[in-house]
Amino acid sequence: MTQHLTSFLEIDPQSDFTMHNLPYGIFSEIAQANKRVGVAIGDWVIDLAVLETHGLLQLDGNQNYFNQPTLNTFIESGKQNWQKVRQILQNLLSVDNPTLRDNAELRHSVFHPQNAVTLHLPIHVPGYTDFYSSKEHATNVGTMFRDPKNALLPNWSELPVGYNGRASSVIVSGTDIVRPSGQIKLPNSERPIFSATRKLDFELETAFIVGKATELGQPISIEDASDHIFGMVLLNDWSARDIQQWEYVPLGPFNAKTFASAISPWVVTMEALEPFKVKGPTQQPQPLRYLQENIANSYDIHLSVEVQTPQSQKSEVICQTNFKYMYWSMAQQLTHHTIAGCNVQVGDLMGSGTISGPTEDSYGSLLELTWNTTKPLTLSNGETRGFLEDGDRVVMKGYCEKDGIRVGFGQVENTILAAHKFEFNQTEEESYETV
Amino acid sequence: MTQHLTSFLEIDPQSDFTMHNLPYGIFSEIAQANKRVGVAIGDWVIDLAVLETHGLLQLDGNQNYFNQPTLNTFIESGKQNWQKVRQILQNLLSVDNPTLRDNAELRHSVFHPQNAVTLHLPIHVPGYTDFYSSKEHATNVGTMFRDPKNALLPNWSELPVGYNGRASSVIVSGTDIVRPSGQIKLPNSERPIFSATRKLDFELETAFIVGKATELGQPISIEDASDHIFGMVLLNDWSARDIQQWEYVPLGPFNAKTFASAISPWVVTMEALEPFKVKGPTQQPQPLRYLQENIANSYDIHLSVEVQTPQSQKSEVICQTNFKYMYWSMAQQLTHHTIAGCNVQVGDLMGSGTISGPTEDSYGSLLELTWNTTKPLTLSNGETRGFLEDGDRVVMKGYCEKDGIRVGFGQVENTILAAHKFEFNQTEEESYETV
Repeated sequence: MTQHLTSFLEIDPQSDFTMHNLPYGIFSEIAQANKRVGVAIGDWVIDLAVLETHGLLQLDGNQNYFNQPTLNTFIESGKQNWQKVRQILQNLLSVDNPTLRDNAELRHSVFHPQNAVTLHLPIHVPGYTDFYSSKEHATNVGTMFRDPKNALLPNWSELPVGYNGRASSVIVSGTDIVRPSGQIKLPNSERPIFSATRKLDFELETAFIVGKATELGQPISIEDASDHIFGMVLLNDWSARDIQQWEYVPLGPFNAKTFASAISPWVVTMEALEPFKVKGPTQQPQPLRYLQENIANSYDIHLSVEVQTPQSQKSEVICQTNFKYMYWSMAQQLTHHTIAGCNVQVGDLMGSGTISGPTEDSYGSLLELTWNTTKPLTLSNGETRGFLEDGDRVVMKGYCEKDGIRVGFGQVENTILAAHKFEFNQTEEESYETV
Repeated sequence: MTQHLTSFLEIDPQSDFTMHNLPYGIFSEIAQANKRVGVAIGDWVIDLAVLETHGLLQLDGNQNYFNQPTLNTFIESGKQNWQKVRQILQNLLSVDNPTLRDNAELRHSVFHPQNAVTLHLPIHVPGYTDFYSSKEHATNVGTMFRDPKNALLPNWSELPVGYNGRASSVIVSGTDIVRPSGQIKLPNSERPIFSATRKLDFELETAFIVGKATELGQPISIEDASDHIFGMVLLNDWSARDIQQWEYVPLGPFNAKTFASAISPWVVTMEALEPFKVKGPTQQPQPLRYLQENIANSYDIHLSVEVQTPQSQKSEVICQTNFKYMYWSMAQQLTHHTIAGCNVQVGDLMGSGTISGPTEDSYGSLLELTWNTTKPLTLSNGETRGFLEDGDRVVMKGYCEKDGIRVGFGQVENTILAAHKFEFNQTEEESYETV
């Protein structure tokens, strides 16, 4: 059982950002340009650049790790430093430590109220990979679009299917999403039309961030995989289902995804998640040897999606699921990613794939929740949704809780803006009807 | 008709690197670490960092553009600077200009023999996209693996199908290729095995390099697309066909490609290629309006592949084709890439897809040349090849020629090394048989 840590700060035990969490992000003070590394604690951001300047964060290498516009420099400095900062911060925040507790001036420069800062994309993302590791999600999609009797393709149970995403369009929570346009093929027309998507969807995912690079041609063994993972974020892998359905054969999703992939601003470290480790689902058939692991390598992370329409006063929960349902572990994903020789870089973002659970209210996309609009959702104010409409706001949240200790992810939220008006949009008048 | 330019340097008119070319690369002198920008001319590399230091390259912005480890800083500085450097270099190299011609000391520091330098990856590649734009290639693959009667999928003729590649494994010519290992599914076994690939293949491609970035949500119109393209390279998109066949449904190729994508070291600018513009194939059906262009937007680029085995004294040509066969233009590819809102970054690499021509000796992969090993190639020394074997060296070349003026790409070449020996390789003894 984890020992409860107590701070001199007042921290709501229901806060996502307890002493046990200490997630990293990039912030700037409002109306100031200087981006730097912060750690969330309660309603505050700890300014690591200020702590570093005051000599309170003595690390290996003795560089400037925290007056930086991304976390990459610090992450690259290695696992020993990640552990050291965690220990130093837990010590500095402790109710027994006078360094900050009794120095009002220093406290004033070190702690910023979260509502007085802007949060930025925490990571420079050199590569973005998205997996497809929820058996329930893959089964649902296969049932809808292929063959209900053979919903899972033969390779699905043998390897963590994944594909390369587009790193340039990874954005931070809060960024608005312009409804994408492109080619869609209506069921009864011979040729595609150009239109705004009528099937704009979210995908509830988590993602891990690579903390240790490899050279080309150097696979990561399943035993070493965890050493290469720095932390996790929430990921909304925005998707345009009609664009996707038309474009994705045979080379996979492209424009249906590359308009936006949004992540939460705080990176929760694997060390903070350690107490919440659980065993994942039994894998049958047993994977090939390079993917076999004999340790609990999943995490009990409660996940939810909320939607707020322009007509509603507040967001409401439309999906509740859990990371522990994922069939393939992050270690298996990373090992498989590198087995043929692909190198990874610090900051690489690896998405889980949509995380759906076993029940109909635990599906991680509207595609599944509304079964491709055949079962529209009814919201509490009477509105219905097949897919998302302009002005809708989607909020994803995640947290772990055990023995009264809470470690949360905060949230990733985006609002949908109307599509661009292209002069050659063939069907503007009917753009938001679902088909 | 282009006017012939004459230099005080002796340049073989059959050189790829004439006064009309002036391609950019990154070089270091052998046994020295300092990478910087060079331009190829005849058998020489022009040291642009030295020219810049001597004040001979006065550009907008007046920064350090050339004492840099990649071309990105220079490319980002904009099209005006690209044009200016071309003019300055053609002027400095001219037989009529005494600046370098009559200054032996300066010449000695400016010109390095190409055989006395190491060439590096010329670009930092933030994103790598690969298209699939040769109708002949897509038809061949569809005929072999799907349905000969419906070889082209319905979306193929409506949009330039593409997918996200892996930027981290883009390598420069000369880098050895370790034969990748992974899951392959033999025809008569129920489950996949772990093995080195038995179907290692090349893909003859070109790629363009993005020269001007966009913001997320800002599509590039077909009229503006050319302004966003800096230049072109040769690309060997290395592929493991057996890994690919097992993994690629439904999300596209992944480990079958991410072990290596090799490019030629010299980036040929679009300005140098301008005289070789030709009309591409007629597009039927006429594309949707956002993809319609009314100008010649293809290029007459002769392409070839040579193979050298460990037993042969020299490489021999096994494929000859031409870029002009490409169905979708680079402008159409880039416009389609951004139409849903995806942003592009300076240095993004956009592959053409395998370039196959109409005849059997113009196919751009061994998969097609040997029709998936059913028609093995016989080399001049009597050896045969279905796919590539360890020690084989693959060389791709490309050039334009018109009115006695030549602009060439040099080459991209790699040699295949034996696979890693994994303790869990199930079938080491039979790893290189094709199936």
